[in-house]
Amino acid sequence: MPAPQLVPVRRALLSVSDKTGLIDLGRRLAAKGIELLSTGGSAKALREAGIAVTDVSDVTGFPEIMDGRVKTLHPNVHGGLLGRRGTDDAVMAELGIAPIDLLVLNLYPFEATVARPDCTLEQAIENIDIGGPAMLRSAAKNWNDVGVLTSPGQYDAALAEIEQHGGLTRATRFSLAVTAFNNVSNYDGAISDYLSGLQLDETQQTIAGHATFPAQINGRFTKLMDLRYGENPHQQAAFYSDLHPAAGTLATFRQLQGKELSFNNIADADAAWECVRSFVKPACVIVKHANPCGVAVSLDGIGKAYDLAFQTDPTSAFGGIIAFNREVDGATAKAIVERQFVEVVLAPAYADEALKAFHKKGNVRVLVIPIPEDGNLLGAHPGGHSKRVGSGLLIQSADTGMITAADLKVVTRKAPTEAQIHDLIFAWKVAKFVKSNAIVYARDRQTIGIGAGQMSRVYSAKIAGIKAADENLEVRGSVMASDAFFPFRDGIDAAAAAGISAVIQPGGSMRDAEVIAAADEHDMAMVFTGMRHFRH
Amino acid sequence: MPAPQLVPVRRALLSVSDKTGLIDLGRRLAAKGIELLSTGGSAKALREAGIAVTDVSDVTGFPEIMDGRVKTLHPNVHGGLLGRRGTDDAVMAELGIAPIDLLVLNLYPFEATVARPDCTLEQAIENIDIGGPAMLRSAAKNWNDVGVLTSPGQYDAALAEIEQHGGLTRATRFSLAVTAFNNVSNYDGAISDYLSGLQLDETQQTIAGHATFPAQINGRFTKLMDLRYGENPHQQAAFYSDLHPAAGTLATFRQLQGKELSFNNIADADAAWECVRSFVKPACVIVKHANPCGVAVSLDGIGKAYDLAFQTDPTSAFGGIIAFNREVDGATAKAIVERQFVEVVLAPAYADEALKAFHKKGNVRVLVIPIPEDGNLLGAHPGGHSKRVGSGLLIQSADTGMITAADLKVVTRKAPTEAQIHDLIFAWKVAKFVKSNAIVYARDRQTIGIGAGQMSRVYSAKIAGIKAADENLEVRGSVMASDAFFPFRDGIDAAAAAGISAVIQPGGSMRDAEVIAAADEHDMAMVFTGMRHFRH
Repeated sequence: MPAPQLVPVRRALLSVSDKTGLIDLGRRLAAKGIELLSTGGSAKALREAGIAVTDVSDVTGFPEIMDGRVKTLHPNVHGGLLGRRGTDDAVMAELGIAPIDLLVLNLYPFEATVARPDCTLEQAIENIDIGGPAMLRSAAKNWNDVGVLTSPGQYDAALAEIEQHGGLTRATRFSLAVTAFNNVSNYDGAISDYLSGLQLDETQQTIAGHATFPAQINGRFTKLMDLRYGENPHQQAAFYSDLHPAAGTLATFRQLQGKELSFNNIADADAAWECVRSFVKPACVIVKHANPCGVAVSLDGIGKAYDLAFQTDPTSAFGGIIAFNREVDGATAKAIVERQFVEVVLAPAYADEALKAFHKKGNVRVLVIPIPEDGNLLGAHPGGHSKRVGSGLLIQSADTGMITAADLKVVTRKAPTEAQIHDLIFAWKVAKFVKSNAIVYARDRQTIGIGAGQMSRVYSAKIAGIKAADENLEVRGSVMASDAFFPFRDGIDAAAAAGISAVIQPGGSMRDAEVIAAADEHDMAMVFTGMRHFRH
Repeated sequence: MPAPQLVPVRRALLSVSDKTGLIDLGRRLAAKGIELLSTGGSAKALREAGIAVTDVSDVTGFPEIMDGRVKTLHPNVHGGLLGRRGTDDAVMAELGIAPIDLLVLNLYPFEATVARPDCTLEQAIENIDIGGPAMLRSAAKNWNDVGVLTSPGQYDAALAEIEQHGGLTRATRFSLAVTAFNNVSNYDGAISDYLSGLQLDETQQTIAGHATFPAQINGRFTKLMDLRYGENPHQQAAFYSDLHPAAGTLATFRQLQGKELSFNNIADADAAWECVRSFVKPACVIVKHANPCGVAVSLDGIGKAYDLAFQTDPTSAFGGIIAFNREVDGATAKAIVERQFVEVVLAPAYADEALKAFHKKGNVRVLVIPIPEDGNLLGAHPGGHSKRVGSGLLIQSADTGMITAADLKVVTRKAPTEAQIHDLIFAWKVAKFVKSNAIVYARDRQTIGIGAGQMSRVYSAKIAGIKAADENLEVRGSVMASDAFFPFRDGIDAAAAAGISAVIQPGGSMRDAEVIAAADEHDMAMVFTGMRHFRH
């Protein structure tokens, strides 16, 4: 076993924005005879707790000036952090620079400052910490000799090492230094994002606005897990999360049992989850190859919803991803494992009986996605959507567009019935998650046929009809949703031939008149949403 | 017009890694009577050019110590950069801190240091600049009073203002400060990426490896353009590029004419371009809704390739994106604009006659993607692929898998002919760019039917057959590519019924024996690639 290569801690500098655990830390460090240096609020808090601290200004022999802008930017501090033990000892002694072996420092989050709606440019700029990041970078660079703690969550483990050995091991110091550099990068990334997006008025003094898309963006993600491979076995892959993932979205998942998640599992799970959480009533969504292959809503609960969703396309449901927007009960879990091979199940919660049922099929990946604190799964809002194109990146806001019955514009002689309106809105919600061109046939809040991913709309309509017929599902009396307008009447004709009685689509084609005439000819009801849902 | 709110420049600190333009800058600043402070290599270069400079150590009254680790981290430097003119004048005078009105500083790119294959941990760490970023951040924070130049490209405009007005305007200072913070963010992001991915050996001294996917990643992108909207009109969007986009990829495009690019244009253009540049011989790819709807290779040139690609699916080609891997000639351009409505044309070059032909249809977006310096379009390598999932991000290496005739494993009694092998490899390359499940029928290096985006493979096979029949394209004698294995024999049976004579697919199904038996029964040739190409 290699030596832990301890560096003894004799002197520590404490300067924290988040005071959690500070007093306990100070007390335990002092108890080990470690000299404490500090500044401002941290020094005050430690002193009030009866812990002796030296002011940094005593170390620098230089007053804190410019309302705190310049207090630690001094060779006595940075020399103390950067001095290489063994190499720089002589010059340090000569210039009276005492080594600082431990830095405890965290920054007030810049995002929080600028998130305040009334934050002025002056306030934002004044909140940019210069001394803090400089010390973090000095200490982290000199990790060979110095430890750096950047969050209260690290205190206990570090104290344990110090109390046991009098110092931190090399492995600990390295890992802490990496975290410190990550912190600095996050801090500077947030500043860059904010300033790059700022629009000043003509006086250059006042904020006129914030660009939705700044001139530079700095993505910041932490790894949740390495994946065995990517979309294909010859591709390498990993799964990352935003630093602060939105509640109610996939990145907040916990896996309760089952095999390791694959790249395709995660991608499909996201599609299934985003689709199922768009329904208010108990719903089930089954996804295969990034497309819903069966969706249903049932007032009789998710067990019935699963039965109906499965019926749409049992072949594709085999090896699929199944998502629910309600707690999974024992009967539903049993029905799934008895009926089909399933890759992943997702839900906001599971009854004990359900977990027992899944436990018998230990390979099934069972994921829970906790409901947001406000209880509103529908309102969970992932940050946005991006698509890598070559060495470029397309970024867009998430497709959060929603419509209600009140938004529908009846364009045919015949108006849809109340029951048809329910089905039309159901089919429309599903179509939003089917790859374009998307056509969804539905009846009684059950998908009857799904036509996905075609380069011309009429083929999606044909496929939906073919699939319904292949599964012996009755199209007659069903409704049809189309994610975008019909460029020609042929899609309507194909649907009518299959037995569709009502249509929901955005409208807006040059040939809307022709398309409406076709619907009238077939005695169909048709409504326009005025909103498109391409998804590629 | 608001006042430019000039701040006169009287003193400048110059410390650059990139010495381009340094001497000219120093000379012109000095000519305006501006006092120059400098350090190390910059000071030496200026002095050798006969320009008077003051050493920073004379300003700090503190020696440069620890091999340069500590030289500018001093209140006399940071006070000079951070002091608020008008507010801090008294304290500055009292402590002898002279204002620094202009900072000229750029950092040695950390990426370049660690890109060296023999770079040790010690070298990487030693290359982390502490003083430079601290000064950049101080100057940029105090942009109200200080200008900060971070690249030689900014010198001329700044000098023009200084020579004309004696200082920099407020608008200039703000814009320079934003760029400086972007620079610091890029620098710290690169350090975080590198250190987060480092794997040390058990001594914690030596680099054992680099994780492909570090624990934290910091994306860094610059905006190429705002877009009118996203995938749908109710979504906002923008197009960004890597800081250093790979040659030969979409982000390096120039638009020669036509309407503004849309989100969907760019996404489809990328699919078309990545597909067309995978062919060695003259090729044309037409994309609609993220899928190739017609692809052909022709030894007779791209004009013929376009004709053949168009034939596959004229309906879908309407309003499509057309990409070529050769210069577009006049005749081909004329054929396109006369025959069809086209959204975007992409190619590595255009003959003058071609540009004239497109000019008559001024709305057509004509993009050129310059060929990489090594002339190798096939070798251009975009960094990787990512997919946003809720608040998470799936990242994978690009699908650069390629196969040649030598990789094919014949599994049927019948082996493919030479001509079939050409078609099989052609169809396989196309299938790689068709959304999964992907089935491609092809003959004589022309797509005959493309079945895209289905949740079960047999439907993709059926759709390819239906589409070929609808366009009166003869399937008899064609080959079929499948992006992944056939789970059952039904896909082979469907293909045989349509007239397919040879099949290329990865193999690897539990039922391979059954699938091979089916092919033998139909007297087909079948080869396995051992490589899958899912694309969702």
